[in-house]
Amino acid sequence: MTTNDSVRVSVLGLGAMGSALAAALVTAGHETTVWNRSAGRADDLAAQGAQVAATAGDAVQASHLVIACLLDHASVREVLDPLAGHLAGRTLVNVTTTTPNQSREMAAWATEAGITYLDGGIMAVPQMIGQPGSSLLYSGSADAFHQYRPLLDRWGTSTYHGEDPGLASLYDLALLAGMYVMFAGFMHGAAMVAPAGMTASRFADMAVPLLTAMTNGLHEYAAVIDGGDYTVAGQQSLEFSDLTDILNASAEQGVSTEVVDMVQRLLRRQIDAGHGTEGFARIIESIKNPC
Amino acid sequence: MTTNDSVRVSVLGLGAMGSALAAALVTAGHETTVWNRSAGRADDLAAQGAQVAATAGDAVQASHLVIACLLDHASVREVLDPLAGHLAGRTLVNVTTTTPNQSREMAAWATEAGITYLDGGIMAVPQMIGQPGSSLLYSGSADAFHQYRPLLDRWGTSTYHGEDPGLASLYDLALLAGMYVMFAGFMHGAAMVAPAGMTASRFADMAVPLLTAMTNGLHEYAAVIDGGDYTVAGQQSLEFSDLTDILNASAEQGVSTEVVDMVQRLLRRQIDAGHGTEGFARIIESIKNPC
Ligand SMILES: NC(=O)c1ccc[n+]([C@@H]2O[C@H](COP(=O)([O-])OP(=O)(O)OC[C@H]3O[C@@H](n4cnc5c(N)ncnc54)[C@H](OP(=O)(O)O)[C@@H]3O)[C@@H](O)[C@H]2O)c1
Ligand SMILES: NC(=O)c1ccc[n+]([C@@H]2O[C@H](COP(=O)([O-])OP(=O)(O)OC[C@H]3O[C@@H](n4cnc5c(N)ncnc54)[C@H](OP(=O)(O)O)[C@@H]3O)[C@@H](O)[C@H]2O)c1
Repeated sequence: MTTNDSVRVSVLGLGAMGSALAAALVTAGHETTVWNRSAGRADDLAAQGAQVAATAGDAVQASHLVIACLLDHASVREVLDPLAGHLAGRTLVNVTTTTPNQSREMAAWATEAGITYLDGGIMAVPQMIGQPGSSLLYSGSADAFHQYRPLLDRWGTSTYHGEDPGLASLYDLALLAGMYVMFAGFMHGAAMVAPAGMTASRFADMAVPLLTAMTNGLHEYAAVIDGGDYTVAGQQSLEFSDLTDILNASAEQGVSTEVVDMVQRLLRRQIDAGHGTEGFARIIESIKNPC
Repeated sequence: MTTNDSVRVSVLGLGAMGSALAAALVTAGHETTVWNRSAGRADDLAAQGAQVAATAGDAVQASHLVIACLLDHASVREVLDPLAGHLAGRTLVNVTTTTPNQSREMAAWATEAGITYLDGGIMAVPQMIGQPGSSLLYSGSADAFHQYRPLLDRWGTSTYHGEDPGLASLYDLALLAGMYVMFAGFMHGAAMVAPAGMTASRFADMAVPLLTAMTNGLHEYAAVIDGGDYTVAGQQSLEFSDLTDILNASAEQGVSTEVVDMVQRLLRRQIDAGHGTEGFARIIESIKNPC
């Protein structure tokens, strides 16, 4: 395995994230070629020592390893479709956020064109790239992952999740789902207490320790789900978890009930199906089996 | 201020929570009288040294300090309404979960009857009572809180939130809202990855560190909300946060989209109102202003 001491690498897309990825590679001493659709975004990187390519095709031809960090799947297809011939024999690492099926579509296209394909999902904001806490998920070509891992590790902790190229996107989006929903729950609580004069910051002082402590309970729910038995003793029941008080209090405060109502619907479907005395973790069945 | 070394106290309601509260008081050496509607639930406590009252009225008359931990507001009214005369001149601490308005209703009833009223919200499960991490919120009579604080502290960290008797319930329910919604978000992510063969436990291994790290971001959102300016630089925009990829991936996996759709609706309402370039924290406006 190489240490990737000075790999030639090209980065397509210099938005907030692409710029951060390219900067980390330049800093690490890689011969980095960059390209962006609109001019101007490469200036800082050029000053740091990156080569600026005039076209995406030039950027692809400059390096064996090509990183794509564009807006979305459509922009990746738009930029790369005409370059299949140039990319043949090279390795494409696509860290653009896409759905799992879009990642699989790109991988099929790449295989067809003789391109080695690795898909990535970035669990970080641009400021975190290269810093502790930054995590990137990969799936697709194991060879590509192992060959370029030292380079990829410059961006954050790299984990490989299997040959199915859709898995990195899937895990990325599943984690983001959990995060955004948690944010919405916090916002709901902050909205409830606001009419009583509590600031969001004071609410955060109370909520952050509670939510942090409760994340540990997620391992317990997970164990129940994996065990497949929602009747194991010691679980808080679905009936006990009924959210009527929270819904009523939200209405009393004049705020929308839709955030909590989402959870209540998941609960009620299980209770209505006769599982009221079983554990709360059973709400996952309402999600797994849409009505 | 007394140390409450050996206060006489009565506990009405010996469900899972009432039993835990009473047991902590017996352990702490308080002269504890207990009552439960159905027989049998007091046996363990009696063995530990609690007095068992035959009626709720007897329990009330045994102590100056009366704790109510019943199922809900209706059961509290049912048990206490006939005992207003017995309770006059005593202190009632109601830790039954109710809405803020129900707490206020109890406080008004108590004032009318010459009862000192303190309302409580329990941020703990029964096993946590008396252990680190157990937190109880109080509001209503400040005198009662301060007089009995050493006793209340036996159950967990006690915090007082103001004379408005509804505030403890409000904060309790707002925090629980955040917690339940976070749980639902986790379940959604676990449901998404399940068809790909990832266990909920493996998903928890990935999600718990992420969610824990992201709880810190809540302080930043709170600062933006309190500052009142969603255009402050450095915020992730509403448009960037669009959850279409997560929704599509959820649908691809065959799971319900309703959990994430809830967040997307909050987002879209702000974007549709022309705030797409403003920060994500602005979704709280969708909750504060129900449509
Ligand atoms: N920023 C984050 O916090 C973050 C976190 C995790 C993942 N990601 C993912 O990283 C990717 C890039 O995000 P970003 O933050 O860098 O976004 P961004 O700042 O909005 O930049 C978007 C980039 O895509 C380019 N682009 C858009 N449409 C194009 C097209 N049709 N043809 C060619 N180039 C096109 C833009 O070029 P122009 O300059 O010419 O417009 C720009 O370089 C996204 O998939 C995003 O989901 C971002
Ligand atoms: N358990 C928790 O994790 C937890 C956490 C925070 C807050 N709380 C709150 O604590 C309170 C008690 O919860 P719990 O876990 O102890 O519930 P529980 O185990 O279901 O016990 C309910 C208690 O209420 C009594 N009760 C119900 N209806 C009654 C009525 N009409 N008249 C007289 N007594 C009646 C029951 O008496 P019988 O035995 O005669 O049925 C029993 O003592 C609830 O408000 C709950 O929200 C509980």
